[in-house]
Amino acid sequence: MAVYTTVDDIALSKFLQYYDLGKVLSFAGIAEGVENSNYLLRTDQANYILTLFEKRVDPTDLPFFIELMETLATAGISCPLPVAAMDGTILRVLEGRPCVIFNFLDGAWSRFPNKAKCWELGTVLATMHLEAAAVTRHRPNTLGPLAWKPLFSLVQGQVESLGVGMEQQIQDKLDAIIQNWPTGLPEGVIHADLFPNNVLFIGDKLTGVIDFYFACVDILAYDLGICLNSWCFEADGTFNLTKSRAMLKAYDQVRPLSEAEFKAIPVLAAGSAMRFFLTRLYDWIHTPTNALVSPKDPMEYWSILRFHQSVSGTAAYGIDL
Amino acid sequence: MAVYTTVDDIALSKFLQYYDLGKVLSFAGIAEGVENSNYLLRTDQANYILTLFEKRVDPTDLPFFIELMETLATAGISCPLPVAAMDGTILRVLEGRPCVIFNFLDGAWSRFPNKAKCWELGTVLATMHLEAAAVTRHRPNTLGPLAWKPLFSLVQGQVESLGVGMEQQIQDKLDAIIQNWPTGLPEGVIHADLFPNNVLFIGDKLTGVIDFYFACVDILAYDLGICLNSWCFEADGTFNLTKSRAMLKAYDQVRPLSEAEFKAIPVLAAGSAMRFFLTRLYDWIHTPTNALVSPKDPMEYWSILRFHQSVSGTAAYGIDL
Repeated sequence: MAVYTTVDDIALSKFLQYYDLGKVLSFAGIAEGVENSNYLLRTDQANYILTLFEKRVDPTDLPFFIELMETLATAGISCPLPVAAMDGTILRVLEGRPCVIFNFLDGAWSRFPNKAKCWELGTVLATMHLEAAAVTRHRPNTLGPLAWKPLFSLVQGQVESLGVGMEQQIQDKLDAIIQNWPTGLPEGVIHADLFPNNVLFIGDKLTGVIDFYFACVDILAYDLGICLNSWCFEADGTFNLTKSRAMLKAYDQVRPLSEAEFKAIPVLAAGSAMRFFLTRLYDWIHTPTNALVSPKDPMEYWSILRFHQSVSGTAAYGIDL
Repeated sequence: MAVYTTVDDIALSKFLQYYDLGKVLSFAGIAEGVENSNYLLRTDQANYILTLFEKRVDPTDLPFFIELMETLATAGISCPLPVAAMDGTILRVLEGRPCVIFNFLDGAWSRFPNKAKCWELGTVLATMHLEAAAVTRHRPNTLGPLAWKPLFSLVQGQVESLGVGMEQQIQDKLDAIIQNWPTGLPEGVIHADLFPNNVLFIGDKLTGVIDFYFACVDILAYDLGICLNSWCFEADGTFNLTKSRAMLKAYDQVRPLSEAEFKAIPVLAAGSAMRFFLTRLYDWIHTPTNALVSPKDPMEYWSILRFHQSVSGTAAYGIDL
């Protein structure tokens, strides 16, 4: 929630000589995105976002992310379109950081998206999964199931404060998820971080999908698990079946889900909850107590995880097979 | 450099029912301003800034700041114009914070403003000083000369790391400034924090003066001291007389400075350097070493202070009396 790299007016105007974007009207750092530095650049032609990639993004992954966004934007999905410099290059360097200019997307994110927004999301997510098949580059999911045990080992011995016996419970649930992890389901490029703060709306119309910097190749329906967890639980931790049904039905109308995919939803959603539980737990333990940015509470995802391990079938998600 | 208070879509749309600003197209926190939370609000009618005042601003000072900005904006000075709700109120409450919507100002700030920009600044500063005479409310300078000794006492015994004998040197310079502080010079409303990051330009044209939250009544020429310090020293700490002359001449053409004011410039600028040295020193000592925002180096202002105490007359600032 900050700008990590400062770009001053002289550096900016030197950099923009490589582009044909018009006269700069305003330039301000924006407090969105925890991984990179983002600036809103307004010219007399249009609005743009200038993103400087900070240390947490591996520069060798950038061509994959750029190809993905270009592919989706060109296919008509509302996502940031990388803007090329006059010499045709998209990925450049500014203040020692790799950087890209994107077109600006209107809209604002919704903290508790309603049913209509969940429907929109399902539609767009399925369309993204279909269109992303054209992406030629590959990026493995570095935070997928194979990463969860190593991630857990980094916090072992430090979780007592969460409750007595917690370490054993995490171990047991992790083992259960890994043992039941599905094989043979359709794979492809997934967004992998499609929380409400990465989706923009005007009214109930979806106007933008942003922040593709966790995108990777994995089980497509795993993306639905991530969205169920981040879009369909209410502030009090309860699960909203109406929203879940809307999201899944909308998705299914664009990319029909197989029975195997539907049946795998509880374990995929539990796996997604485990992934965010573990990364939040890691941040929780490793963030200094006086830091400006408070880490997110991992226990929110523990409760979500328990929900998915308690359901008896897909009916719990509003789906009749 | 952050947003301290989160405003979600539901809170925003409820709040905007009190205004007639059109349909929201985008809403994003911006990473400018260390004191308050600022959001860029774009509607189908115009761009606005929504400012939520955080703890460091005293709510009882807000009517003064609002009156000042309204007075200046109405007089044609490019500064944020507070936007009234439909019932006529300007100061409202959102998420428990006092807040105001302002019109948005185009432009970007300049890290090392050139001579032409210094000239623009001098002109606008003098115009502001003249127009602000119409402000009826009063706010004393809580960081003026009377505050410097108490401020120094808060860091006494903790400045050894800056150099041997530093504490005594600060004491001596502070005493010298206070003893020579001018009396009888014209007073009025000053901005009191007019650093380059609070002034916007498009090309060399000044398009905005922002961040009036240190504004107060004090010696008018003291504002010039603040600007000389923050606009006319180069990155290597050297003083640029060409820029200083441009700023002072431009100011003098709009609001002629008396000989007494010109002669007081070295001590006023030294006092301004002492004020920023002491507040930076305080922040330097009291900021945790692992904080996300690094405190600014107080020694930059120590060097500026020494410059002003070394000059033999106004010629050092490019002025012939």
